[in-house]
Amino acid sequence: MAASFRRRGMHAPATFSLFVRALPSERGFLVACGLESCLEYLEGLAVGDDDLDALTALGLDDLTIEALAGLRFTGDVSAVPEGRVVHAGEPLLEVTAPIAEAQLAETYLLNQLTFATAIASKAARIRLAAGGRGLVDFAFRRTQGVEAAMTVARASAIVGFAATSDVEAARRFGLRASGTMAHSYVEAFDSEGEAFRAFAEDNPTNTVLLVDTYDAHTGVQRAIDVITRLGLGQTAGIRIDSGDLAALSREARRMLDAAGLTKTQIIASGGLDEYAIADLVAAGAPIDAFGVGTKMGVSEDAPSLESVYKLVAYDGRPVMKLQTGKATTPGPKQVFRGPSGDVIGLRDEAIPPGTEPLLIPVMEGGRRIHRESLDTARERFESDLNLLPETALHIRNPARVTVGMSPAAEALTTSVHKKLIGRGHASEV
Amino acid sequence: MAASFRRRGMHAPATFSLFVRALPSERGFLVACGLESCLEYLEGLAVGDDDLDALTALGLDDLTIEALAGLRFTGDVSAVPEGRVVHAGEPLLEVTAPIAEAQLAETYLLNQLTFATAIASKAARIRLAAGGRGLVDFAFRRTQGVEAAMTVARASAIVGFAATSDVEAARRFGLRASGTMAHSYVEAFDSEGEAFRAFAEDNPTNTVLLVDTYDAHTGVQRAIDVITRLGLGQTAGIRIDSGDLAALSREARRMLDAAGLTKTQIIASGGLDEYAIADLVAAGAPIDAFGVGTKMGVSEDAPSLESVYKLVAYDGRPVMKLQTGKATTPGPKQVFRGPSGDVIGLRDEAIPPGTEPLLIPVMEGGRRIHRESLDTARERFESDLNLLPETALHIRNPARVTVGMSPAAEALTTSVHKKLIGRGHASEV
Repeated sequence: MAASFRRRGMHAPATFSLFVRALPSERGFLVACGLESCLEYLEGLAVGDDDLDALTALGLDDLTIEALAGLRFTGDVSAVPEGRVVHAGEPLLEVTAPIAEAQLAETYLLNQLTFATAIASKAARIRLAAGGRGLVDFAFRRTQGVEAAMTVARASAIVGFAATSDVEAARRFGLRASGTMAHSYVEAFDSEGEAFRAFAEDNPTNTVLLVDTYDAHTGVQRAIDVITRLGLGQTAGIRIDSGDLAALSREARRMLDAAGLTKTQIIASGGLDEYAIADLVAAGAPIDAFGVGTKMGVSEDAPSLESVYKLVAYDGRPVMKLQTGKATTPGPKQVFRGPSGDVIGLRDEAIPPGTEPLLIPVMEGGRRIHRESLDTARERFESDLNLLPETALHIRNPARVTVGMSPAAEALTTSVHKKLIGRGHASEV
Repeated sequence: MAASFRRRGMHAPATFSLFVRALPSERGFLVACGLESCLEYLEGLAVGDDDLDALTALGLDDLTIEALAGLRFTGDVSAVPEGRVVHAGEPLLEVTAPIAEAQLAETYLLNQLTFATAIASKAARIRLAAGGRGLVDFAFRRTQGVEAAMTVARASAIVGFAATSDVEAARRFGLRASGTMAHSYVEAFDSEGEAFRAFAEDNPTNTVLLVDTYDAHTGVQRAIDVITRLGLGQTAGIRIDSGDLAALSREARRMLDAAGLTKTQIIASGGLDEYAIADLVAAGAPIDAFGVGTKMGVSEDAPSLESVYKLVAYDGRPVMKLQTGKATTPGPKQVFRGPSGDVIGLRDEAIPPGTEPLLIPVMEGGRRIHRESLDTARERFESDLNLLPETALHIRNPARVTVGMSPAAEALTTSVHKKLIGRGHASEV
């Protein structure tokens, strides 16, 4: 497609709008995430000689290859910054560039924003369920690839996870790495007590003993012996990874307290998600922190979002699709967030008094003009979370937030629709 | 953990076994996939100076850092080659190496084999549902990262997908790239007919016209005009991406045939998975090929597998875990496949006459000794598929295949279990 546009001299600017059409049933809101890698990608997007050789090898014809030579991204981008709470239909990102460039970026932009936003939104629900208890990302083992594990560690950190077991992600994004002990470590020693002693000696500042390799009750007792003997009561923890976590955590707390280890933390893990965590919290389980893995790492109940990248303007002309059930709204957009909620409007509308525009310029002429720390995204998420209606925060059956449409956007939709029908584009199927 | 093992001089060989504990409810079998990247990873696995610097920056202590210096993978690996049909409990891969090395590889091996196997297994079901019709991988836009898209293209090719829209994956793995036309292409032109003409002229050997941007009936008529005028009837196709695919494909077929375009193919896409495809095929929809995206690309109904990497032997001693509901079977293993099904046995058992061992040596002393083409994996899948009972092939409510355990493996489990209980490791919770 990109080659075809360029062969035909179609270099006019196009605006594409990337948004999520509808929310998965168990989501009351989304958390924008993934912009950072999109900006890196767009800044580096260029068709090089290697690419042309590869395309030739794939059998593309000379005219197509020639048309792509020299292509690089020269456009403008506006986007919702990371950590922001967003809703269905609100653009996460808009690209304005010569149409071939904007078209070529589609797959990567959709891929990155969809996945990171899906994970940040899932992790935010886990954060809500945990109600202030600690959270550690344990997902790396079963994410959909290594790159996915990095995205999960970063996205979960933005919504309040305290640490990750992914050492490479910790290094890359400046997160806290949290080492864990596996059942295999215990099994490699002649006895559980010996394994606990060895691990505690070698990890004195990060002693979390996994107590359920053989039997949790005996495991807790052995952990108490080691923690007491080495004087690690103030910093150590125990981890329970199976069985009835509510009952086992209560028993462990009782045993730890009876031994005077009132500061020793209890960490729970094993197939946890927001539903399981909410139940444990509701049951008053004395768990200090949760290790959350697979179900967050693949966003198990909604592993993708209904994201789209739609042409909304070409060569100054607003554009829309009429396809049954998938019609789009024409024109470059802005979202105005005010005390009475969000309104999707046109980009060139005046900002209504008392509202904040959600999309900000992040790239101009192919150069990024937006850089921020993970802490900034984290703070943005915290403050946005406070603005959400309580019903959108529910773990089960959350309510969607209604988003309005500005009169100008409504009027443009009506007029473009009429024009298309006038051109014979929309007889009923 | 790895550092702790090395600090304590625990260099004895350990065997870890990687397997899927239980199948997701809608899977009658799995397709082994992901070995290639595991072998590449293990061959390159070494702790370098950069890694040590990074760990120091993360706050690890000197003794830990020193213990990791010089570590590289020197072990042996046996594995089920790619494309093989496997079942719950059957090892996909076994690593035997000094315990620190084997432990360090856990996360990567689990990550890669779990995801690739999940996708190959999902794609295999789609392939079964399509019953010989063409399949094209359209998943890149919404996979969980770019690396994931490459894995999806490769895994789906092994189970019989004919092409991918992921040009980079096509280049990397030698697959057929299949360009597609988006709705935005149509919208960028003044009229649909003009867009079709331009696309057909620029892609004469790969003309697939997307007919539902405005209205499918009108779109098919305009496609017929262009295909006829340019004489592309033998090679061109039309694609329908929305609406009632069964009804629209029937209408399109009638219109194409009436215009003499009996060879022009109909491609359907839009939220397809094995269930939707099975329904379309059962309804007799005249669809020649399916473009399958998101639901395959994230394995939507089972985005992860219950995979584990368990220590089964250390320093010559068989090892098992007793943890409630998650007990493991000790000892290095082999799977014997014969006419009466699969039997999990011990690796050092004699191969029962008439059976084939599923695990083959793939690495020795840290060097890979197994390399094969994607075509070999593809052929292996085809022949394994023919051996499955018909009930395991069902799209809805597939039956699991029962896997036996050899008397020697049973006996070892009983004896290790007794020994652990004798050492006070397994009082009831």
